[in-house]
Amino acid sequence: MKTTVIKELVNVELKNPILVEGFPGLGMVGSIATQYLVKQLKAQKLATLYSPHFPYHVLVDKKGGARLLRGEFYLWKNETGENDFILLTGDSQAQTIEGQFEVANRILDFAEKKKVKTIITLGGYRNEVEDTPKVVAVSTNPALFERALKARAISSEAGTPIVGTAGLLLGLAKFRKIDAVCLLGETRGYLPDPKTAKSVIEVLQGIFNVNVDLKGLDEEIERSKEILGRMQDIEKRRVKYVQKMRRVEEERITYIS
Amino acid sequence: MKTTVIKELVNVELKNPILVEGFPGLGMVGSIATQYLVKQLKAQKLATLYSPHFPYHVLVDKKGGARLLRGEFYLWKNETGENDFILLTGDSQAQTIEGQFEVANRILDFAEKKKVKTIITLGGYRNEVEDTPKVVAVSTNPALFERALKARAISSEAGTPIVGTAGLLLGLAKFRKIDAVCLLGETRGYLPDPKTAKSVIEVLQGIFNVNVDLKGLDEEIERSKEILGRMQDIEKRRVKYVQKMRRVEEERITYIS
Amino acid sequence: MKTTVIKELVNVELKNPILVEGFPGLGMVGSIATQYLVKQLKAQKLATLYSPHFPYHVLVDKKGGARLLRGEFYLWKNETGENDFILLTGDSQAQTIEGQFEVANRILDFAEKKKVKTIITLGGYRNEVEDTPKVVAVSTNPALFERALKARAISSEAGTPIVGTAGLLLGLAKFRKIDAVCLLGETRGYLPDPKTAKSVIEVLQGIFNVNVDLKGLDEEIERSKEILGRMQDIEKRRVKYVQKMRRVEEERITYIS
Amino acid sequence: MKTTVIKELVNVELKNPILVEGFPGLGMVGSIATQYLVKQLKAQKLATLYSPHFPYHVLVDKKGGARLLRGEFYLWKNETGENDFILLTGDSQAQTIEGQFEVANRILDFAEKKKVKTIITLGGYRNEVEDTPKVVAVSTNPALFERALKARAISSEAGTPIVGTAGLLLGLAKFRKIDAVCLLGETRGYLPDPKTAKSVIEVLQGIFNVNVDLKGLDEEIERSKEILGRMQDIEKRRVKYVQKMRRVEEERITYIS
Repeated sequence: MKTTVIKELVNVELKNPILVEGFPGLGMVGSIATQYLVKQLKAQKLATLYSPHFPYHVLVDKKGGARLLRGEFYLWKNETGENDFILLTGDSQAQTIEGQFEVANRILDFAEKKKVKTIITLGGYRNEVEDTPKVVAVSTNPALFERALKARAISSEAGTPIVGTAGLLLGLAKFRKIDAVCLLGETRGYLPDPKTAKSVIEVLQGIFNVNVDLKGLDEEIERSKEILGRMQDIEKRRVKYVQKMRRVEEERITYIS
Repeated sequence: MKTTVIKELVNVELKNPILVEGFPGLGMVGSIATQYLVKQLKAQKLATLYSPHFPYHVLVDKKGGARLLRGEFYLWKNETGENDFILLTGDSQAQTIEGQFEVANRILDFAEKKKVKTIITLGGYRNEVEDTPKVVAVSTNPALFERALKARAISSEAGTPIVGTAGLLLGLAKFRKIDAVCLLGETRGYLPDPKTAKSVIEVLQGIFNVNVDLKGLDEEIERSKEILGRMQDIEKRRVKYVQKMRRVEEERITYIS
Repeated sequence: MKTTVIKELVNVELKNPILVEGFPGLGMVGSIATQYLVKQLKAQKLATLYSPHFPYHVLVDKKGGARLLRGEFYLWKNETGENDFILLTGDSQAQTIEGQFEVANRILDFAEKKKVKTIITLGGYRNEVEDTPKVVAVSTNPALFERALKARAISSEAGTPIVGTAGLLLGLAKFRKIDAVCLLGETRGYLPDPKTAKSVIEVLQGIFNVNVDLKGLDEEIERSKEILGRMQDIEKRRVKYVQKMRRVEEERITYIS
Repeated sequence: MKTTVIKELVNVELKNPILVEGFPGLGMVGSIATQYLVKQLKAQKLATLYSPHFPYHVLVDKKGGARLLRGEFYLWKNETGENDFILLTGDSQAQTIEGQFEVANRILDFAEKKKVKTIITLGGYRNEVEDTPKVVAVSTNPALFERALKARAISSEAGTPIVGTAGLLLGLAKFRKIDAVCLLGETRGYLPDPKTAKSVIEVLQGIFNVNVDLKGLDEEIERSKEILGRMQDIEKRRVKYVQKMRRVEEERITYIS
């Protein structure tokens, strides 16, 4: 493995497939959303991506084994709609500039081979979130952009950078004549953020007229609130402790004087 | 895209073309100057440069789309003079040593193909600026160097490094038997500096007998003065605040004692 | 040498060889264990691995010469058992992500050529050690994993990363249809740790029914205890000194006040 | 220039040539020594080495031109002795691990082509210097090592690393069946150190029975002593100033109290 490779596991006929990408990134928004879709749609494993630009470690699995970091392509045969969906998620993004471009290009090679005409990349952008997280849409195709806005996405300020695979796929898809849309949900970004992932899926559903049960995601949101609550408690106690120690110190200084 | 590529958009006959390069760098001097020339001369887009050594993000555009970082070659058909001008600017420089060499070599491949005999690279060097910014000239061709000095450029101390594309093009052009001159305007460098960009263009005009209306640049200079003024106000208030807090602290210590 | 190379010194027939890898890492556990096996089993030098991804220096040797950093393959002809052992250790691991993958793949090329069916990688993981250091086992083969647990290894939590050559060999071996097991001994990791190396060898012995005299390792453990003791003495004296200086300082402040 | 290249300027017959390498490094010992030999022996320029692994800038020259960083091979036709000398020095070492290996291998390609049988690399190692700087010798050839010791070099402790081109040439020369010796002079290393360079040349003279007038180097040594003296004066005044400010501060605190 001198270069990024994609190993196909099954060879199935695909119906106008759409590729949805969600690699780990800010608030894990893209990967939470994509992994939820994989689970909820009972998508079938299609192919695995390995890269010498991923971090050089393996991960222990539940059975005492271990595996390289990887990307995974899943297939959702969409029986009722017009498009099958290929769902791509993974453990990590490439760790170097050149690796980022190589991985994005290998993904596009695979997309071309599978006759993908539309790519959707999912991710997060840092913002203070009030109530329901907003979702920004960016697209290389004006019609697709309009559909995203109708599905309640908002537009982004010109000049905003979109970093990593979610951005590069958009930029590089043009050279393959593949349309692409990027959906970025706002997130504080310092914890995995299923709430923003839900907002992103809702826009995705609106654009492509897909119907996915999001109850499971609500449970994740509840769990993440609890974690956040506990972390905030710890932080409050830490601040109190520091303040108390400071008063003790001041009294000591006063005493010495 | 495993390597830096240049995609040509039009194929036009060029008259003894001169290549002017101004990528982002210190004070954005080179890119401000080149972009101004492109706008003022209504230059026509000629080719686009993409590189896997540019930062791995895309930029959102005004229409909700996005694009890779890139270099852009523009053509100014110089109806009255002897030379057409190819103007090259871009979003970024390559991010690795090897990438810097690769991008500079691809630019020179393109220059050779277009039968460019002279290259001018524009940029800034850090200095305290009094009144009108000085412009340093460095050239691989003594006659060109003399013309730069006559156009009021000054010479640079031996041993001075010229970093990045502006420097490498100079160093690598020799192997292609292309003459090159580098014009560097002095700049404090911590803000985009249209004033220094103007000085650089004035030397360029003097060398090549080109006449460009610089009024538009004067407006940019006024705007940048305002920005600088506001930033200095903020800084002054910050300093005052810090000084006040220090006095309060000193009084507190005195009291404790 | 543009790429990692393995130079073979002798060409001998091997009996169902097993490859044991122990490169330098946390607490030097893997390299101490493997080097002890080489010495104790009087293993014969088989091949040398050189890589342009190792640090760019040479090491002075005892005779006034110098040599590149390298990996070394040794052969233990196991007269009584079923498997010969190839022991691989070295001076350093590759210094870049891509180098790590390249070195691991060259090692596997060599293993395939030598018809290795099983690879054991040795290393350490950071933990507070109480009494006898525990050894974690991870394996791509469930039967091998069971044998490791019977030999008193314990299992590791899912999601734990195994970094470097010890991990990558495990992850990449699958593509060559080679079984692999990784044995990681717990170590504080801030000093070479022969005690943990001993624990790791004991598990290795249990799995493969090999019998190696570990007395020599006990001597190394004694020496390392002495070094640790001396370092702790130095640390205690340092802390005392700092405390004393602080008291002096406090008295000075009190006086001034 | 995708890779390191050596451009030959003249093609002359060489008599059993010896290659002396002195790139910039600790205390600039290697480059000062080699450059002095070039000047003193009036050596003729033989070839130039360029590399995309050198820093990506050019250097302004005395005539207003500029050039890439480079290595330079010079030839000293040794009329009276058995060996011609190729002297190699340069502006910089390669900036990446892989670049270091590539540059060293290109130098060895050139050495092989020129039928070089012996390479001498020069450099410095960090040490407190008393009186005359000592010179350490390391060699891949025992006879050469003995000759170095007779020429008053000393041996180095086993395990000492020799970093960079001076070390890699030694390590890689073995694969080309070229003998190599490395001479490292002790130096404090924080300033260019012509005194240590002189010690290194003296050992070199002793080994190869060459006679070079070192008076010019004595002048450089005098100049560097003056610079050092001035720097020490500045340091002393700085320390005095800091001490005075501290007393003022203490008095202020006392007063406040």
